[in-house]
Amino acid sequence: MKINPELVTRVLTKFISEETRKAGFERVILGLSGGLDSSVCACLAVKALGREKVLALIMPYRDLDLEGQEHARKMADLLGINYRKIDISPQIDAYFSAFPTDNQLLRGNKMARERMSILYDFSAREKALILGTSNKTELLIGYGTIHGDMACGINPMGDLYKTQVRELARYLKVPEEITSKKPTAGLWPGQTDEEEIGLPYEELDSILYKLVDLRQSPEEIISSGFEKTKVKRILELIKKSEFKRRMPPIAKISSRTVGHDFLYPYDWDK
Amino acid sequence: MKINPELVTRVLTKFISEETRKAGFERVILGLSGGLDSSVCACLAVKALGREKVLALIMPYRDLDLEGQEHARKMADLLGINYRKIDISPQIDAYFSAFPTDNQLLRGNKMARERMSILYDFSAREKALILGTSNKTELLIGYGTIHGDMACGINPMGDLYKTQVRELARYLKVPEEITSKKPTAGLWPGQTDEEEIGLPYEELDSILYKLVDLRQSPEEIISSGFEKTKVKRILELIKKSEFKRRMPPIAKISSRTVGHDFLYPYDWDK
Repeated sequence: MKINPELVTRVLTKFISEETRKAGFERVILGLSGGLDSSVCACLAVKALGREKVLALIMPYRDLDLEGQEHARKMADLLGINYRKIDISPQIDAYFSAFPTDNQLLRGNKMARERMSILYDFSAREKALILGTSNKTELLIGYGTIHGDMACGINPMGDLYKTQVRELARYLKVPEEITSKKPTAGLWPGQTDEEEIGLPYEELDSILYKLVDLRQSPEEIISSGFEKTKVKRILELIKKSEFKRRMPPIAKISSRTVGHDFLYPYDWDK
Repeated sequence: MKINPELVTRVLTKFISEETRKAGFERVILGLSGGLDSSVCACLAVKALGREKVLALIMPYRDLDLEGQEHARKMADLLGINYRKIDISPQIDAYFSAFPTDNQLLRGNKMARERMSILYDFSAREKALILGTSNKTELLIGYGTIHGDMACGINPMGDLYKTQVRELARYLKVPEEITSKKPTAGLWPGQTDEEEIGLPYEELDSILYKLVDLRQSPEEIISSGFEKTKVKRILELIKKSEFKRRMPPIAKISSRTVGHDFLYPYDWDK
């Protein structure tokens, strides 16, 4: 699972500059939460395109994650990129005053989708491509909001596990207070990913790596010393979140259907 | 391009009931605009699952499309399904009072994403799968909002051109006032799709059918009597909207990457 951070940085910055150009943009935009992933993504974007081509949005809900806000601002200042702080509270409060709930997951999903919606609005206003900040761990177990934080134009870090992102962050000299803090989706004060998922990222990533990258069977992984319940639970999470990693199924009627046999733009370049 | 509406109805109702069950739901939810597509989709859902398993949300912005609201209500009453009217104006006005714009496209996209966000919230509250209502014409030319009206759990009508949906609507006895009115995305009062796209659906669908289903070259289509500028424009629309029909590109780092070589849930069923 060890990465070569220098090589990975080279691959990802090349990805960002090439895909941005291919998509017809010169600039990128991303949501900056003050967490590990968006901080690393901002660093990569600056390395790829230069700081004047990167715009960050900091989108807090009330005082839910003041530390995150502070870290986001610090990261933007450190990189010298432009950023705007946009409070999502008016829209969120307007909705939940009509449809109240104490369910923090419902509230968190609505917030993630509001942030997506604002990012896309600013993407159009500023002609900047949206960089996604989901990592491989989140994508595989579905720890993210579909059409929320999982939505983007391109995703540079989607093939790096959370622990690998942290390794990359240290190489990129992301401040230690960001690198070493407990990851949080910011759903409620004091919420941490690891408590919610039920196991530490080191263990989660090890199991995912064996399952996905090494193609080991659950039995092999269990016999190599991992708890059966944990391995089974992770398998279940991967299966249950499949819908977040693909386009919605379309009923096939004709001989050439979007998502079935009409797939690629290069069909059109002849 | 002629469809067999009886057969198509059978295929699509089977698709809805099977996919709903596979996704772990017993009920479905959809946004009802009062237009052709969502009306047909509601009919199919009722045929597939029974009227008590279908929930509709009518989500107007102020008085932007009063006729649509009225038609949506009529359709829901006709089918005997439960519906809720949810006004999206408070959230939309909260956002645009902070970031004003006269750009109707920006405003329309924000509205489409707010509706998506509410549908997903109610999907979770009501344990109902979201039915998408995009048709093949819209999907191919990208006439829709990514992470807005294009977002859904399953899409029953994504392989039917708009003109075929209309044919199906008549078979399903959707009221003539809905079937025959000018399609509109409801972006501004009096807006019609055909004016915005720049050609009537009949012509658009004919060209798309030749390009996509019959795999004819642009040259063949032009020589069979269609205007060169129109054919070229449609080709361009298909290419430019590719990003709306696929998941965002992920930079490849490892030997097994989400969206590249890690794709299918059945990898996990062994």
